[in-house]
Amino acid sequence: MGKQAIGVVGLAVMGRNLALNIESRGHAVSVYNRSREKTDELIAEYPDKKLVPAFTLEEFVESLEKPRRILLMVKAGEPTDATIAQLKPLLDKGDILIDGGNTHFTDTIRRNQELAKAGLHFIGTGVSGGEEGALKGPSIMPGGQRDAYDLVAPILTEIAAKAPDGEPCVAYMGPDGAGHFVKMVHNGIEYGDMQLIAESYAVLKQVVGLSNEELAKVYTEWNEGELDSYLIEITSKIFKKKDEETGKDLVDVILDRAAQKGTGKWTSQNALDLGAPLPLITEAVFARVLSSLKDQRVAASKVLEGPVAKPLGAGRDAFIESVRRALYFSKVISYAQGFAQLRAASEEYKWDLDYGGIAKIFRAGCIIRARFLQKITDAYAKDKAIANLLLDPYFRDIAKNYQSALREVVIAAINAGVPVPAFASAVAYFDAYRSERLPANLVQAQRDFFGAHTFERIDKPGSFHANWG
Amino acid sequence: MGKQAIGVVGLAVMGRNLALNIESRGHAVSVYNRSREKTDELIAEYPDKKLVPAFTLEEFVESLEKPRRILLMVKAGEPTDATIAQLKPLLDKGDILIDGGNTHFTDTIRRNQELAKAGLHFIGTGVSGGEEGALKGPSIMPGGQRDAYDLVAPILTEIAAKAPDGEPCVAYMGPDGAGHFVKMVHNGIEYGDMQLIAESYAVLKQVVGLSNEELAKVYTEWNEGELDSYLIEITSKIFKKKDEETGKDLVDVILDRAAQKGTGKWTSQNALDLGAPLPLITEAVFARVLSSLKDQRVAASKVLEGPVAKPLGAGRDAFIESVRRALYFSKVISYAQGFAQLRAASEEYKWDLDYGGIAKIFRAGCIIRARFLQKITDAYAKDKAIANLLLDPYFRDIAKNYQSALREVVIAAINAGVPVPAFASAVAYFDAYRSERLPANLVQAQRDFFGAHTFERIDKPGSFHANWG
Repeated sequence: MGKQAIGVVGLAVMGRNLALNIESRGHAVSVYNRSREKTDELIAEYPDKKLVPAFTLEEFVESLEKPRRILLMVKAGEPTDATIAQLKPLLDKGDILIDGGNTHFTDTIRRNQELAKAGLHFIGTGVSGGEEGALKGPSIMPGGQRDAYDLVAPILTEIAAKAPDGEPCVAYMGPDGAGHFVKMVHNGIEYGDMQLIAESYAVLKQVVGLSNEELAKVYTEWNEGELDSYLIEITSKIFKKKDEETGKDLVDVILDRAAQKGTGKWTSQNALDLGAPLPLITEAVFARVLSSLKDQRVAASKVLEGPVAKPLGAGRDAFIESVRRALYFSKVISYAQGFAQLRAASEEYKWDLDYGGIAKIFRAGCIIRARFLQKITDAYAKDKAIANLLLDPYFRDIAKNYQSALREVVIAAINAGVPVPAFASAVAYFDAYRSERLPANLVQAQRDFFGAHTFERIDKPGSFHANWG
Repeated sequence: MGKQAIGVVGLAVMGRNLALNIESRGHAVSVYNRSREKTDELIAEYPDKKLVPAFTLEEFVESLEKPRRILLMVKAGEPTDATIAQLKPLLDKGDILIDGGNTHFTDTIRRNQELAKAGLHFIGTGVSGGEEGALKGPSIMPGGQRDAYDLVAPILTEIAAKAPDGEPCVAYMGPDGAGHFVKMVHNGIEYGDMQLIAESYAVLKQVVGLSNEELAKVYTEWNEGELDSYLIEITSKIFKKKDEETGKDLVDVILDRAAQKGTGKWTSQNALDLGAPLPLITEAVFARVLSSLKDQRVAASKVLEGPVAKPLGAGRDAFIESVRRALYFSKVISYAQGFAQLRAASEEYKWDLDYGGIAKIFRAGCIIRARFLQKITDAYAKDKAIANLLLDPYFRDIAKNYQSALREVVIAAINAGVPVPAFASAVAYFDAYRSERLPANLVQAQRDFFGAHTFERIDKPGSFHANWG
């Protein structure tokens, strides 16, 4: 009996779909799950596919060609550590473990170091695209030993999504935790995108007064231009969907309490550690948290009054265009922050990330896929070392032409009492980033006054302390 | 020779000043420092004070009454662990270690547990007020074993600051890490306060066009009303201070690059962990980080244009009053967020925090001391279980009467291109918190669409998944 070139451990939906994806490219795949029911189910459902079941890890490991390629699709955290501990004594030097789970990058750095001591390779890879992406072609962000990556690259390339120009959405991100880090920032950016779209919806509904039917039309149109992206596309579809039970528009039946799985939070916490300003995505994370306090909000809505909304004057269509511009420019600002975080991480963890290459593999397969990502790739192609995307000529033009629309929309929302934390944070970041002088001199004066923390001067180098008396 | 009731380990400025503070209340104090120079200097400087030097830890421990009370004022992190490890074998059951350093509360929880196993008590205490506070009377936030606290309470009460009504600014916060946690949130609130004041300064300077002399006058006036606080007081003094070298106003000579020591960051990271919305303080932390990117900002200021500032119309004095109201209401919102975080922490870590009591001990000694804190104490006296300070009648009135000023100031700043991230975040939080309905239903629809994450419905309980097709 021949041996398989790759095996998958963990047959929950993501593992199972990746196994099917690999199989569909002509590879036989060894599959193993801790409880054998999932394995039996998979084999029973697809009896004709080249899936080779194993019911012990020994059997599974034995079924693989050397160097072994093992894709771990188990729960992040302790279950992943436990699985690695069980596998480790069964493996040989040079074998490659690939963690495709939703792992914090610091765990990946640790595991990579520990396994390297035993002569084993460890690839931590982000996999984005949900269940369907896993099956048909996800965006894949692998990090770890470069030579180990080269041994798994052919299969990853086959199963990855293909961008509109045919390029596969997979690339080597960098050493140890780089892949899981990029996936984390991808998810943070996804939080930002979703919050910005939600705010555009709130403004269009509450300030302009659009119906769901009109909203569907607006997002459908937007999806044909600069905003062309998966999230805008599904948003347009969401507004058309009817609830099967009540016949109402489904979006109106859904409770306004957003859940989260923690990767947005990780992104913000890491930005705070790195000292990389990430206010927009962080506002998006807090917006989800605040939405979850539904009972408090309902109680507060009864006692905390807001402004009386003024009807929108003439120019409804012009205002809708302003919302579109506000959304696009805010998105630019959010990505500028996210890519600046990647840059800070690349320096801090010595990863030498390829920012343009990262934008490239986001172009298909993943949740944030969008036409706009090509502009980011282009910006880094023009200037690899650009400190912030807002400085690129294309994005500078967007800033120049769209900032008045963003200001207009934020002001209209504030006047109407509609919360737009991410839009407002975008304006503040833009104005702060382009400020030669910020009021932080006062902050430094205060810190020196009460804590003798010293300050720098504008006219000469050094640290100074004043006797404020 | 008699033994001392308390000893201090670590004679850097905070430890030394606390030792002098304790001595000034009539206690002899044993003092020890790892390198003997600091001890010698202290004794040489104050030969007549009841400071009893020890030059080994054995000698130091031997010099103390039982149960021993040892105040650790060493560097947070590993130096604190190292000192505890050295002391531990020298101590007897029932002895009390008090960590007055700038320690992360999770370290305090861990140390409390570890030492409790050896029969030792561990009090982690926040100490706020800087060097001068340490010497003359700080605000003190102790957490740990209640019975151990009772044994140190008399001395802590003597050395604490006294509020205007004479009450000492010290109180038992709760078990293990409660004290250091409260100090952390105090510091986060301090970041918020300082950023809000900085934004008021930016608006008054850039939108209204006030000179430093006028600014000094404005803040002096503000310090006589609702905003009466230490930070407003020192702000008014800062604008009067001349640079001794150049004769210019010192504030204009100070570089606008704000530094930080990390406690603001901790507060935001913890809020993200707890799921407690803390956007304003987090914007303040990111504002400091962004200010530190001075070179990037200078470069960006040359290529990213903003709006042409319109001159302020009639009503300059009225607008200044609007800035005052914006500042006060934003401060209320910031404290509402900070105290909601305390509440979330109290539930998560089972601390049973006394929120009104916490506001009470902030009234003197610490950096955020302010007349306004009495209003928080009053609010919790009226309703101990209030979910959010904005729901209290006094703060509701502030919201009602001052929100239009806050909106006006944010709008003026956005029109002028002046960044006001914390003011803008305050508006967004207020409007979101009082929203019965937020656009998070769309976020949940998107999550269910691309990831089958399910959603709740408004009309019945349960989790649902739609076939979005």
